[in-house]
Amino acid sequence: MKYLVLVLLFALPLSAQTEQAKVRDYIRTHQRGILAEFVELLKLENVALNNAKGRADIQRNADFIVKMLEKRGIKGQVLNVEGGFPAVYGELLTPGATKTVVFYAHFDGQPVDPSKWKTPPFEPTLLDSAGKPMPLNLNPGIVPDPARANPEDFRLYARGASDDKAGVLGLITALDAMKAAGVKPSVNIKFFFEGEEEAGSEHLGAILAKYSDLLKSDLWILCDGPIHQSGKLQLVYGARGVMGLEMTVYGPNRALHSGHYGNWSPNPALDLAHLLAGMRDKDGRITIPGFYDDVRKPTTAEEQALAVFPDVDSKLKSELKLGRTLGNQRVERSALEPALNIRGIRAGSVGEAAANAIMTEASASIDFRLVPDQSPQSVRRKVEQFIRQQGYKIEGEGASDQPGSRRIRLQWETGYPPTRTSFAAPAAQAMVRTIEAAFPQQKPLLRLPTLGGSVPAYLFEQQFKVPVMILPIANYDNNQHAANENIRLGNLWQGIELYASLMAGLGQHWD
Amino acid sequence: MKYLVLVLLFALPLSAQTEQAKVRDYIRTHQRGILAEFVELLKLENVALNNAKGRADIQRNADFIVKMLEKRGIKGQVLNVEGGFPAVYGELLTPGATKTVVFYAHFDGQPVDPSKWKTPPFEPTLLDSAGKPMPLNLNPGIVPDPARANPEDFRLYARGASDDKAGVLGLITALDAMKAAGVKPSVNIKFFFEGEEEAGSEHLGAILAKYSDLLKSDLWILCDGPIHQSGKLQLVYGARGVMGLEMTVYGPNRALHSGHYGNWSPNPALDLAHLLAGMRDKDGRITIPGFYDDVRKPTTAEEQALAVFPDVDSKLKSELKLGRTLGNQRVERSALEPALNIRGIRAGSVGEAAANAIMTEASASIDFRLVPDQSPQSVRRKVEQFIRQQGYKIEGEGASDQPGSRRIRLQWETGYPPTRTSFAAPAAQAMVRTIEAAFPQQKPLLRLPTLGGSVPAYLFEQQFKVPVMILPIANYDNNQHAANENIRLGNLWQGIELYASLMAGLGQHWD
Repeated sequence: MKYLVLVLLFALPLSAQTEQAKVRDYIRTHQRGILAEFVELLKLENVALNNAKGRADIQRNADFIVKMLEKRGIKGQVLNVEGGFPAVYGELLTPGATKTVVFYAHFDGQPVDPSKWKTPPFEPTLLDSAGKPMPLNLNPGIVPDPARANPEDFRLYARGASDDKAGVLGLITALDAMKAAGVKPSVNIKFFFEGEEEAGSEHLGAILAKYSDLLKSDLWILCDGPIHQSGKLQLVYGARGVMGLEMTVYGPNRALHSGHYGNWSPNPALDLAHLLAGMRDKDGRITIPGFYDDVRKPTTAEEQALAVFPDVDSKLKSELKLGRTLGNQRVERSALEPALNIRGIRAGSVGEAAANAIMTEASASIDFRLVPDQSPQSVRRKVEQFIRQQGYKIEGEGASDQPGSRRIRLQWETGYPPTRTSFAAPAAQAMVRTIEAAFPQQKPLLRLPTLGGSVPAYLFEQQFKVPVMILPIANYDNNQHAANENIRLGNLWQGIELYASLMAGLGQHWD
Repeated sequence: MKYLVLVLLFALPLSAQTEQAKVRDYIRTHQRGILAEFVELLKLENVALNNAKGRADIQRNADFIVKMLEKRGIKGQVLNVEGGFPAVYGELLTPGATKTVVFYAHFDGQPVDPSKWKTPPFEPTLLDSAGKPMPLNLNPGIVPDPARANPEDFRLYARGASDDKAGVLGLITALDAMKAAGVKPSVNIKFFFEGEEEAGSEHLGAILAKYSDLLKSDLWILCDGPIHQSGKLQLVYGARGVMGLEMTVYGPNRALHSGHYGNWSPNPALDLAHLLAGMRDKDGRITIPGFYDDVRKPTTAEEQALAVFPDVDSKLKSELKLGRTLGNQRVERSALEPALNIRGIRAGSVGEAAANAIMTEASASIDFRLVPDQSPQSVRRKVEQFIRQQGYKIEGEGASDQPGSRRIRLQWETGYPPTRTSFAAPAAQAMVRTIEAAFPQQKPLLRLPTLGGSVPAYLFEQQFKVPVMILPIANYDNNQHAANENIRLGNLWQGIELYASLMAGLGQHWD
């Protein structure tokens, strides 16, 4: 009876259940060895700086990952383009498989400021949830100090621990677990490990183009980013695009005494305040005319998927000491709309250095987040039109050396467009079914239509015209990009199991 | 006939005409000696820093000025209060005079950054209008290079050359010119030379109180500031008050990823932009409710006086490369109203350092200019009321540690109130008549109801309850407070003559 209920609930044959348990058991009993390899990978400095050290560091990581693949009997290949950083490729073809999946992760990391870290960023350190150092040689089921905490809550601190060497380690270790469990992949597996993601993926497009035959597939799965703040897994269907803008509003051509000229000369900081306030209202809504015109409405399926997300707003508000949030909508849903964020404002001086003067110019830095069907071009057009409507003459347009009524300089970053895979895409549906089958406690799987942040998923989409999905494994509070980056061990174990389940099950669930 | 016309025009007895000509002639023929003494005074460093060097420097200046007075047979006296910088006092009592005038100037100067000066700030240097160095030993009527320029247009560069050692030198030299011309003062003359004006006049009130008997008078004339931009003299009846405000708007308690949280978390820079834009409209008008309620309307006489000012707006606009000015009113008139000036804004980062993040706080620095009958207290009350109405909880008011809907920190500078002497004040009328008699080409004398800038004239007014007037001599483009401060020689000569004419004529024109 019990068995029957399980079958009905999980809709999986007994063999799959057993295989999943074996995979999990392998991971549980091999934590020490998995961590040992991870630590070696994390010890390698991995900041993709465009200098001799940066290039040598990334090469060292690539070589190490090639060796990791070769240990599993996979031929590792370093992919290079002129001026770029090396990527690593490997493939495991499955006899009889009709679908091919590229699993993506990146092994480079954000720059580090060691003075802000509690442990050295390239000396991986295991701490329990109270911050006490723990030995790295974990044994299965052995809690170093059972009174203190669940070892699933221990965290490994190092640059790249979560973003995104956890992806690399997790994917490769999944192969070990499958092998030990006697599980065969159901799809052709390709690995693509990037080496310059945190440096802006400047050569990614060129690499994808050069190796387009090698990288041909039916689906890209980007193994990067954090899971939901509730601790549940989430499958992400897209990411917002991004573009940056630096703007400078001009005032008088020399600083003026604010007493003598304060009611007479325009103050560029005030002009800038009006311009920014005119672009976005107090509730965060963008008020640039037509800005939302090409925003794609969420589908019913997307709305329904968002409705089942656990509510983390109150928890986040309290954690961040925020008295209010914007527009009365949940954080997951807010990413369905474009965003205009002020990154910074600089004008004159404040505090001790403040002078009773009207400054000559005032600058703001903005980042825009784009959603389908916006493009960097359409955003730029609307923003510039709005600025002109406010009476500004944009530097470089026509007779910019003539004093206009208001003068402004705009410097646009190139930016890139958003992506969003349809909930109806067979590849995406196969992923949902596979994950729900392997992790029944995650059912219904959280399906996020779009990440609030930006990853250049459009490069894969444009080059290969196949669905691009994002499947994170890291804890949400992993200090991504900051000091004290970490991965929670429970998330790492679950991540390995997750990747193994996809490799094993995806082909079976794919219509 | 010609003589009769002159009499009618100038309404002055022949003797006064002659005396004025003799004063002018003395100045013309003693330029070399006057400059020599001025250069010695300007060589003395005069930044009133609160340290051993600053105090020694100011003492050295005070001692030098005492000696300058003693050379003219006036006993110089150093006035001191606990913790303050020395001021210098001297008096010249006139038998039979019924009125007493205190002439004020200050001998300390703004801090210097020598790297920004074209000549060393404490090595006085004479340059012609093309910037070519000129010898300091000017002889009467001898133009060093007649082809180049009018030596009246030469400028002496040094810290304090115009602000305000020109006042000290001009007042003392006026005595020499009068003596040489055989002209007797018509009022009791008192000199008060301050040594910490640019450091904020922190002890001025205490000095005035301590020496109130010594400083008793019927009129204070502050010899400081620039003449009108048209090159005409101007008599100034008051100054705006001033007060400063530093404000910080709070956001999340740690920087947030702008992609994940950009439509959800408030951005303190945007909140600040809305707050500032809500305080002052695009035309510079202050929109804080009730802000103009206690602004005194200009009198008909003041309006009429303003109407005769030469229009310098176009010249200034072109010089400053301003495409527009605020509120469609002339610069002289704009100072009749209060001002709200943004001194600076700081939030996040711009340019290369800009991060795609929501910052934790955003700060602005503001200076307010006050006009009668505003007070620092009334301004503060209205600003804080407005801020509360925008939904902010001001730090320190009630349960500030509780997260409110919007949080702000305000730090007020003490500030001080405005002053404005009535056009009808007999002392002021005497000044107008005296100056117009001595300088017929200045008739009608420009009478400015209030300086746009601020000087703590209220201290004299509160202590002595007598009119306080401001009579500048420096060229308007003297680079006051900045690098390359200078005085135009023509302005210096005219200034000496102006002071002499007042000392000689004021008693005769005073009803």
